[in-house]
Amino acid sequence: MEPGRRSRLALLTDLYQFTMAYGYWRAGRHWEPAEFELSFRRCPFQGGFALGAGLGECLAFLRGFSLSQADPRPPPDRAETRVRPDATGGASPTPALKHVSTQPGRLPWGSVKADIEYVRSALPSGTDEAFFDYLRTVDASEVTVAAVPEGSVVFPRVPLLQVKGPLLVVQLLESTLLCLVNYASLVATNAARFRLLAGPDKKLMEMGLRRAQGPDGALSASKYSYVGGFDFTSNVLAGQLYGIPVRGTVAHSYVVSFSALAEVQPRMLAPRAGGEPVDFPCLATTWLERACQLLRVPREGVNEGELAAFVSYAITFPCSFQGLVDTYSVMRSGVPNFCGVALALAQLGYRAIGVRLDSGDLARQAAAIRRMLRACSVQFQLPWFEAVPIAVSNDVSEQSLEAFGTEGSDIDMIGIGTHLVTCPQQPSLGCIYKLVQVNGRPRMKLTEEEEKMTLPGCKAAYRLRDAAGRPFMDLLALADESPPWAGQELEAWVLGASPEALRVIPAAVETLHRTYFKDGQVCEPLPSLPEVRSHAAASLRSLGPAHKRLREPEPYQVAMTEKLHVLLQTLRQASQ
Amino acid sequence: MEPGRRSRLALLTDLYQFTMAYGYWRAGRHWEPAEFELSFRRCPFQGGFALGAGLGECLAFLRGFSLSQADPRPPPDRAETRVRPDATGGASPTPALKHVSTQPGRLPWGSVKADIEYVRSALPSGTDEAFFDYLRTVDASEVTVAAVPEGSVVFPRVPLLQVKGPLLVVQLLESTLLCLVNYASLVATNAARFRLLAGPDKKLMEMGLRRAQGPDGALSASKYSYVGGFDFTSNVLAGQLYGIPVRGTVAHSYVVSFSALAEVQPRMLAPRAGGEPVDFPCLATTWLERACQLLRVPREGVNEGELAAFVSYAITFPCSFQGLVDTYSVMRSGVPNFCGVALALAQLGYRAIGVRLDSGDLARQAAAIRRMLRACSVQFQLPWFEAVPIAVSNDVSEQSLEAFGTEGSDIDMIGIGTHLVTCPQQPSLGCIYKLVQVNGRPRMKLTEEEEKMTLPGCKAAYRLRDAAGRPFMDLLALADESPPWAGQELEAWVLGASPEALRVIPAAVETLHRTYFKDGQVCEPLPSLPEVRSHAAASLRSLGPAHKRLREPEPYQVAMTEKLHVLLQTLRQASQ
Repeated sequence: MEPGRRSRLALLTDLYQFTMAYGYWRAGRHWEPAEFELSFRRCPFQGGFALGAGLGECLAFLRGFSLSQADPRPPPDRAETRVRPDATGGASPTPALKHVSTQPGRLPWGSVKADIEYVRSALPSGTDEAFFDYLRTVDASEVTVAAVPEGSVVFPRVPLLQVKGPLLVVQLLESTLLCLVNYASLVATNAARFRLLAGPDKKLMEMGLRRAQGPDGALSASKYSYVGGFDFTSNVLAGQLYGIPVRGTVAHSYVVSFSALAEVQPRMLAPRAGGEPVDFPCLATTWLERACQLLRVPREGVNEGELAAFVSYAITFPCSFQGLVDTYSVMRSGVPNFCGVALALAQLGYRAIGVRLDSGDLARQAAAIRRMLRACSVQFQLPWFEAVPIAVSNDVSEQSLEAFGTEGSDIDMIGIGTHLVTCPQQPSLGCIYKLVQVNGRPRMKLTEEEEKMTLPGCKAAYRLRDAAGRPFMDLLALADESPPWAGQELEAWVLGASPEALRVIPAAVETLHRTYFKDGQVCEPLPSLPEVRSHAAASLRSLGPAHKRLREPEPYQVAMTEKLHVLLQTLRQASQ
Repeated sequence: MEPGRRSRLALLTDLYQFTMAYGYWRAGRHWEPAEFELSFRRCPFQGGFALGAGLGECLAFLRGFSLSQADPRPPPDRAETRVRPDATGGASPTPALKHVSTQPGRLPWGSVKADIEYVRSALPSGTDEAFFDYLRTVDASEVTVAAVPEGSVVFPRVPLLQVKGPLLVVQLLESTLLCLVNYASLVATNAARFRLLAGPDKKLMEMGLRRAQGPDGALSASKYSYVGGFDFTSNVLAGQLYGIPVRGTVAHSYVVSFSALAEVQPRMLAPRAGGEPVDFPCLATTWLERACQLLRVPREGVNEGELAAFVSYAITFPCSFQGLVDTYSVMRSGVPNFCGVALALAQLGYRAIGVRLDSGDLARQAAAIRRMLRACSVQFQLPWFEAVPIAVSNDVSEQSLEAFGTEGSDIDMIGIGTHLVTCPQQPSLGCIYKLVQVNGRPRMKLTEEEEKMTLPGCKAAYRLRDAAGRPFMDLLALADESPPWAGQELEAWVLGASPEALRVIPAAVETLHRTYFKDGQVCEPLPSLPEVRSHAAASLRSLGPAHKRLREPEPYQVAMTEKLHVLLQTLRQASQ
């Protein structure tokens, strides 16, 4: 692979991975066949499910996995913060990376070492030079990855990824894979919870760019919120890169930047159907007076700067005028101004597309706004006017969304930022990546903390469904067991439940994992982002409502076959 | 600027910025001189201070700010997840970006539009084509940025950045600047709180890579935790890029990958001073027996796989052996095995560098481990042995760190991941970017929510210190007021306090903001990352202890001069 194609994420890992890699290499064990599983221990947000996400990015990382030897280019992950190395630009052959910034004109990038050289400097002196020669040859060409399809509903202890390959290589992949799956799955799950709460009809928009952990956190939030069921993002780059529909109108700064109607430029607007342009500020003023009269709002309390902002915006976007109504007083200024401008537009044949509200009690205000829109609709005989969509945002959380109650039915679209992207109820999923087999021997972590114990051996996982097609159990088996079949009576040891086996008869059995990566290549067609999103919706739809309750859900059963159960007991006893 | 140097972050913004930009342009207002302030409303974590961070990245973004016209390269921020477009690699001229992934071999990147073209597709049809011609010329060459030096202690309502320039341009910068400052400042502040809690002597290591919001979130966490007072990171890429010291040893997977001493390869280790190599597993076994006897631990309960892992690691890194002691039983296996191996090393002249503990009650176990180390130290006459550093990690939070109590004194190093990088106490800082002046007219947002109101006008900020050199007030003045001087009696209206003015006499006055960016260039020498870190430490040191209390701190005073106070009142009244 040419250097320009090398992934620069190989060093996005914890140092101990290299320490261990050296340990394995020194002991001649680096080639031993090993398998790790990536899973999580508990559903996030005290819920009953998670959506598995991040697989596509893991596969891309694997395809490019290798360590650079001498590469003076800045790493792409921060290349957007390059600076021109000098005032004239372009004079230097090595673009400067602006991180540990120095005096203007100095080149911090020049001092960043190539991967191998950097690892050498970070390991104890005396590390065998032949190890670094070996690292130069390392890539993912001998790695095999099986995974649950991206967007699937997943449960604790069931591996999202099964990563097989030479011990040293699969160990080195740990931190990066965790980094790529953890947040993706967490925020997709969070988005799915908002979708469940909002119901299928309300539009949901992700707007967390400014609250995420930097540029990449924000892009991940946009991408995986979309997977989880959001409709739009405010993030233009996410729209450009992923094709997610973007939305956005104006901010308060736009509104406050106007102070009087005299500032509005240009002033003329032609009717939609064509014809003589009219002086739109004048027309809007006339309609504002009528609206004030109808709504019993004192005309003198209406802010003129806000009116000017709305008028200017309407002239600019006559077919997509939306009013942000809470810069001053919502009811005494914002809504009357919106009605004045929207009715003036209506006279010219244009339909306003919405009202936006960004503070205060959103549901109560939305209901009041709807009443005012309805009054205008009746008075001025514009049936569509009462249905003008109301969009709200203001620190919306699961709790505030629940509190909307019946008044919330007047809300058409909800913008969610902080509580979506930062997942404050549980800001990390806590995925783990554990060795389950090495050199043909099943392994497990037998710690004193029961919950931190892992399940040994190479496994297969089956989703068992009832006659209605609802999944009721994920069954973990050893990989060499023959798969269960529909109608078979099975013994299952449910994790975290009584030590007795349960007898179940599935009406249908689905193999959970597919092999996605083999011989250094992606070997299974990957779905597009909208396909992943549809799969997530379908996967959630099939799940029983009791597992989807956001609070105190009924735990979904994850169980072991007898063989796996026996293996676990044997290894536990052997260590005691 | 050549295309290769263009920033690809220009579209990392909210769509409404472009909508507003078009509104301003259409109204002929895009060139109007405007000023925005970036600030926060409340200190994070219910604390009394924040550390301002992210400035260096903001400046780098500004230098490269412009929109691409036609650029088929993948954007650098995700370029690390490129995949080879086909199995042979290198055949295609355009590297594929692996995001909305499709069948292997398809090129999703090929469909990503250049910036300008994408913005055109996202705005309503009918948007004037001349606007896009104008966007092609937009950059930050007319923007001026003044800022508080990076790493400074900062307080609510005092601008971290003051951004001046043509209205359209400075509006477009909003979301990206917020994205770059918000998390940087939040995590630096969080790190500083951990440092205050841990005291100056314990070593603190950031290890949140797998819990952050993707690769960039993780790198930001490493970088700004270091600024806030951490000593190390586990993230190798952060070490490579930023020069932060990295640390790491082994994981449980390394320990469980061994099951018997027979697997240890190679077995021989020479004494440090030179001489005949010895069979190290044998030597360690002998010492393990002595240690078990001394510590009254049954020899048969000691796990042999763990012993093999320690022995192998010690042979690999004889000068830097550290034992991860909690894979099986800490007291009945991990510590005895550590002592056996470390004492065997000691016989050969090597000193073990530490014990690591990753589960259970960390402080209590550390105290018990210290007693065991002390017993060995006395029995085998190795004074240094009792001081072997104990490193701990396991979901450490502010609360658990506080709970360490006196037993915690036996802990030498603390690794913190989730609770550092995700800032669960408050996962976003909530910075805002508000218009304060346009075309010479001061502006403010006069909303019904008092806290969302902004302070109008171009301002200067002064930090007032008492005779002991402690800052006691940040005073906001209009930019055209003459600066206060040391010894002057000043009237100050404290924000959020009584409507009466306070009279204060500062012993010293410091101007808070410096101009960092002018004419498209960084115009002030930028400190290195270690310099930013030192500045943060010094800035925190000078702050009074009452403001640094982690719970219920005394609020630091932020006040206005009479002129600013009068302007605020005037604008409020004018809008009523």
